Amino acid sequence: MAENLKPGERLDDLQIKGYELIQHPGKFCFGMDAVLLSAFADVRRGERALDLGTGTGILPILLEAKYQGEYYAGLEIQEESADMARRSVLHNELQGKVEIIEGDIREAADIFGAASFHVITANPPYMIAEHGLKNQSGAKYIARHEVLCSLEDVLRESAKLLKPKGRFYMVHRPFRMAEILTKMRDYGMEPKRLRMVHPYIDREPNMLLVEGLRGAKPGMVVEPPLIVFEKSGSYTEEAMRMYGSGRREEILMPGCVTDEERI
Amino acid sequence: MAENLKPGERLDDLQIKGYELIQHPGKFCFGMDAVLLSAFADVRRGERALDLGTGTGILPILLEAKYQGEYYAGLEIQEESADMARRSVLHNELQGKVEIIEGDIREAADIFGAASFHVITANPPYMIAEHGLKNQSGAKYIARHEVLCSLEDVLRESAKLLKPKGRFYMVHRPFRMAEILTKMRDYGMEPKRLRMVHPYIDREPNMLLVEGLRGAKPGMVVEPPLIVFEKSGSYTEEAMRMYGSGRREEILMPGCVTDEERI
Repeated sequence: MAENLKPGERLDDLQIKGYELIQHPGKFCFGMDAVLLSAFADVRRGERALDLGTGTGILPILLEAKYQGEYYAGLEIQEESADMARRSVLHNELQGKVEIIEGDIREAADIFGAASFHVITANPPYMIAEHGLKNQSGAKYIARHEVLCSLEDVLRESAKLLKPKGRFYMVHRPFRMAEILTKMRDYGMEPKRLRMVHPYIDREPNMLLVEGLRGAKPGMVVEPPLIVFEKSGSYTEEAMRMYGSGRREEILMPGCVTDEERI
Repeated sequence: MAENLKPGERLDDLQIKGYELIQHPGKFCFGMDAVLLSAFADVRRGERALDLGTGTGILPILLEAKYQGEYYAGLEIQEESADMARRSVLHNELQGKVEIIEGDIREAADIFGAASFHVITANPPYMIAEHGLKNQSGAKYIARHEVLCSLEDVLRESAKLLKPKGRFYMVHRPFRMAEILTKMRDYGMEPKRLRMVHPYIDREPNMLLVEGLRGAKPGMVVEPPLIVFEKSGSYTEEAMRMYGSGRREEILMPGCVTDEERI
């Protein structure tokens, strides 16, 4: 399958169903965020799921591997990432089941139509873009900062795209939690389930996972904390299970930032 | 000091500065919620603090014991509780420093005046009152259900009562977190700090502690989880420190519900 790869690209083992993902280590590699979101989310038999800002397609491919949904779409604005994602879909022979669409999150409801999905996932940029900063066009910068879409854009389009009682799953940073929960409610997606992800048991959380239900009543469950690493620096049982791997040591993709470095 | 006690009442050791609290075990005893809130909150030198719905006065008395504030007030609508709280203030010789006022939370800003406190604390009723239910007049029911004041009342009055950049501290239940954070923002008290309290490390949180800052910008810190019990059922180091006690076993007040039973 090497003919699928362009210069600098590499195939990384996703540790599930033999799937592999095309990544470019110098540009952007998926992180633990995507893996945890795929485990936190749920796609039921016959459902249609859309990932907003899918990058190299990690979410739709992992969701297809884990759940019984009928169709998985990924929307990505960056041409190069969308192209890599499409080639990964072909490489894993998921055409028909997983589809990558090039387009703008801010127009997602127009692209797909209102109330067209049972499930939306999003691993959006976490950071507010600094105005006037140069070098805002790199793939990494765009993936991490709200240059091309804001939290507000993601929530507004998700609410339109979801069927009534459809489910929204997002991974984000705890420092924006108040904004996230407020705006989800503003757009009619009631937060129903929340889980904080702590690198170590005695450390502040560095991620949050949230599930919203379109058109639901107030009232939510906060789940037990998800702890990623033991004191020793090896994964906890639960984090290991989410990676779908039997390995305790970090699942290293050479050239990519490790989970411990990200923390 | 037994002359201060009425039939059925008892003096309970607060494990700090030799203070004791008058409680009536058949009616309402303070719980771990109040202890954790007093540790999560902060009152700085020279500041004025108000506890909304103070019950038997546990919060202002614990805050006075722990911090350097100038003045601590407690507002309580139930005459019998307010009377017990007042007698506890006298018993600990805190008159002048701690004051109990009988009155309605819904009119708190009129009672004390706008922007009159640096700090507000609240351990309000957690449960929504069921309409048409009989027996809604008991002290316990009123303390636990939104019969005489709602979350909205507490937040609205707190926002009025706080000086600019004044701090609001509340303990509540996680199932209402989305509502809490949304409404704090609606009233201009930006959530800045949040801590989830888990009875055991692998259990869902049963309380949340939140700090809001009046007139602040968005952006918050979620702190490491607070774990109350070890697997063995004895307190963790941190919970023990908050009780100000060197004892590992539960601090039992005979006749009151234990922390483990509450969970």
